[in-house]
Amino acid sequence: MAIRALVWGENVHERANKVVAEVYPGGMHQCIADVLQADPNITASTATLEQPEHGLTEEVLARTDVLLWWGHAAHGKVDDAIVERVATRVWQGMGLIVLHSAHFSKIFKRLMGTPCALKWREAGERERLWVVNPRHPIAAGLPEYFELENEEMYGEPFSVPEPMETVFISWFQGGEVFRSGLTYRRGAGNIFYFRPGHETYPTYHDATVGRVLRNAVTWAHNPLPAIADPTEAPNVPVDKALEPIEERGPKLHKAGEAGLR
Amino acid sequence: MAIRALVWGENVHERANKVVAEVYPGGMHQCIADVLQADPNITASTATLEQPEHGLTEEVLARTDVLLWWGHAAHGKVDDAIVERVATRVWQGMGLIVLHSAHFSKIFKRLMGTPCALKWREAGERERLWVVNPRHPIAAGLPEYFELENEEMYGEPFSVPEPMETVFISWFQGGEVFRSGLTYRRGAGNIFYFRPGHETYPTYHDATVGRVLRNAVTWAHNPLPAIADPTEAPNVPVDKALEPIEERGPKLHKAGEAGLR
Amino acid sequence: MAIRALVWGENVHERANKVVAEVYPGGMHQCIADVLQADPNITASTATLEQPEHGLTEEVLARTDVLLWWGHAAHGKVDDAIVERVATRVWQGMGLIVLHSAHFSKIFKRLMGTPCALKWREAGERERLWVVNPRHPIAAGLPEYFELENEEMYGEPFSVPEPMETVFISWFQGGEVFRSGLTYRRGAGNIFYFRPGHETYPTYHDATVGRVLRNAVTWAHNPLPAIADPTEAPNVPVDKALEPIEERGPKLHKAGEAGLR
Amino acid sequence: MAIRALVWGENVHERANKVVAEVYPGGMHQCIADVLQADPNITASTATLEQPEHGLTEEVLARTDVLLWWGHAAHGKVDDAIVERVATRVWQGMGLIVLHSAHFSKIFKRLMGTPCALKWREAGERERLWVVNPRHPIAAGLPEYFELENEEMYGEPFSVPEPMETVFISWFQGGEVFRSGLTYRRGAGNIFYFRPGHETYPTYHDATVGRVLRNAVTWAHNPLPAIADPTEAPNVPVDKALEPIEERGPKLHKAGEAGLR
Repeated sequence: MAIRALVWGENVHERANKVVAEVYPGGMHQCIADVLQADPNITASTATLEQPEHGLTEEVLARTDVLLWWGHAAHGKVDDAIVERVATRVWQGMGLIVLHSAHFSKIFKRLMGTPCALKWREAGERERLWVVNPRHPIAAGLPEYFELENEEMYGEPFSVPEPMETVFISWFQGGEVFRSGLTYRRGAGNIFYFRPGHETYPTYHDATVGRVLRNAVTWAHNPLPAIADPTEAPNVPVDKALEPIEERGPKLHKAGEAGLR
Repeated sequence: MAIRALVWGENVHERANKVVAEVYPGGMHQCIADVLQADPNITASTATLEQPEHGLTEEVLARTDVLLWWGHAAHGKVDDAIVERVATRVWQGMGLIVLHSAHFSKIFKRLMGTPCALKWREAGERERLWVVNPRHPIAAGLPEYFELENEEMYGEPFSVPEPMETVFISWFQGGEVFRSGLTYRRGAGNIFYFRPGHETYPTYHDATVGRVLRNAVTWAHNPLPAIADPTEAPNVPVDKALEPIEERGPKLHKAGEAGLR
Repeated sequence: MAIRALVWGENVHERANKVVAEVYPGGMHQCIADVLQADPNITASTATLEQPEHGLTEEVLARTDVLLWWGHAAHGKVDDAIVERVATRVWQGMGLIVLHSAHFSKIFKRLMGTPCALKWREAGERERLWVVNPRHPIAAGLPEYFELENEEMYGEPFSVPEPMETVFISWFQGGEVFRSGLTYRRGAGNIFYFRPGHETYPTYHDATVGRVLRNAVTWAHNPLPAIADPTEAPNVPVDKALEPIEERGPKLHKAGEAGLR
Repeated sequence: MAIRALVWGENVHERANKVVAEVYPGGMHQCIADVLQADPNITASTATLEQPEHGLTEEVLARTDVLLWWGHAAHGKVDDAIVERVATRVWQGMGLIVLHSAHFSKIFKRLMGTPCALKWREAGERERLWVVNPRHPIAAGLPEYFELENEEMYGEPFSVPEPMETVFISWFQGGEVFRSGLTYRRGAGNIFYFRPGHETYPTYHDATVGRVLRNAVTWAHNPLPAIADPTEAPNVPVDKALEPIEERGPKLHKAGEAGLR
């Protein structure tokens, strides 16, 4: 069965800004979804901020294997309850791919537990992404580096936790570097942060970027059954202990009582 | 200068539950603070839930090098704004030591980005903590294992991110295991989770546990200056670029404009 | 195309020790290969110590996707040149699964860079393996724990590097714990250490152990093309630099000269 | 007590190459030792390749807290037995700082278990090292970046294991990037790889580089007692088990017999 990807886009600048509208006439989310569809093993749909529940209902998330997230102008307009719902789905096993300015999205900050801040400069300068982990699934089919002639600069320090793996590091014309491809696992969910994708440049039309996105969806997909309730803390009663034990000492909880939280 | 530790205690069960009151007549926070004071290089004070701002004002946190956190019955009563304030201080460089049932505290879940759930059983069974990282600073002076004759059981899976280091793993009489000592770094802050410490048992009176707590405070202390604003994302203007670049392509932001977030 | 697994067995105790011969009449390597063959996506062959080049010729390794390694009595008899050949294949992308007493094999110590030492006791005691990373590919289809009624005990500290991921932790009847499932990546090669498998017990006949082995082979397989020469350190001449630079300052190397090593 | 640092230098190019001799008239090892002595908490001595046992006798290593290693032309002349001796001291708790071209030293490759290969170009180009882990002890007192106007380029991919922490990433004028400051722990030993230091440039005379070296020595120092025999695998007899167990099943080993290895 194909991997069911869902591309979430803010869809704000595409409508408010003429430059962005020209680069992405169907919206950035649609462009990214089209790029993913080039892989016959991926089916891609889209959701946007202005939809009810931002297009991220329980039902939609339940049938999503990998969620891609692009946002910039309206991070604050994303409902906290929806963020928590998405986080829960990630812990259950849904993959998450965080794109460019979504480093400041609520969902990424929620899952990282850090500010996710960085330096930036919008000057259309050259970015060169080096593969630092050759033969990583996300780098499949890539040359040792690839270039984007016009991109926004993001510079270190990037205040995220040490990643599981560093896949890409970017060189910028103006003198900065950035860890541009980072993997994490949170609960049963695989997370990939991918740096490029400023809305005024045609980054998501780039063939190598497309390859990375398709690779990342394939890598992030966890085919195993969802963890039913990842936040549950089950009690194991004494008489169900795997080794015979005898209850000793004073107790806080009565038998059968739920734990505190 | 001595390391300034602050022990935060919920101070609920010590007053509401006769058993706990007898084990910790001055409150758990005071017992832990006394244990820390046994190290002449540590000065320890306390703060509790019922104080204004939970005793965690900006001023108090600014002069705290390492915060220890014990909570169980009243995680939900901790104000979200105070949680965010503590998180910010951790990113700035304050150490944080999370004790036992504080695995479900708002501050730990905030910094981990995961549910931090586990199995549990309150049966006063034997726990044996094995040092899996010999000569780690937190294990200084410890034997290869130590035992607590009566403890609450916590069992895997413990839904936290992969740690920077695993220092202790517990064996439980009833058949479970648990990663009982885990280190993390979030921003400039060093974080240590330490499992033992159920309120109905005299765990914090145990000499080896005391040694671990003092070691952990010493390890978590970051003596470097606080990061002033860890959530800031500074713009680097084109004319301040370290290498000469020329602005190219369309722009979203006007010169001098703050970034979106 | 099926994953090509190769099971390397020492094949010493199976012939010298009556007990082992009865548990594994065809040799442990053959039993493990049969277990793998239960997955139609895996084809498994075997190689043993006494074969020319230990059955690990360049040709054999070139067509091996994942190598499994069991050894105990004769680690020292494995030729150093063959060890280096296997290490190179791992760096190129071959998966490696290290079983039980192979913690002390030359190839595992070579790839870890640490002693890989541990405690042990041969008493046929109960081992219970807990899944600490639910929905990890290597734990696919497993319950939250599984038991082996008779196994050799291995105890911490296990002197290996911090793993990429901890998948299993074992509880032992006699009071010890052990990190029984650990993942690593070295070069393009995925490595999994799996603890159980003492030769006097029928561990490799256990259905759950079989499932873990098949999962591990699937996980360790890197389908990308091998890295041709992972030890090469290529020079990038000035006139091939990606950004125009001018040679400056004194030089140690003449143009076109190979690097020192 | 001061930290006892030992600077190991190959001392080949300083005598054979006029350029190097002029930059480092007392030898690179002596220059680095002088730089370390600027910290009153460090005492630094030196050892070189041509000395008996390369100056690394058991006695010398036993009184060394942190070893710094610079080599380039003569990696192959370092005796394998000495390499093993140094590795053992690292596992016991000695810190190790690996400098520049020592990425290809036997001791670094031994401890990493990977090729430690990279790209290179000797063109005296500009290197800018960014601090990606602010307030890390090794970055104490450093600005957000520092520059070396003339350095050899090292480019990714650098075939080392994922580090515990990435402290520095370098930007090179010619278009490459490199992870220039990486931490590892192997056994009880802390390891830091630091990239700069090509012998034809005055890198070790740079004030910021000096600060990094002193910071790294302080960070790498493990003050705890050495692990006596890090390669030992002790047997725990049944009658010494921490929990009462009864021996069951067939045995390979006789009582009191040493383990196989």
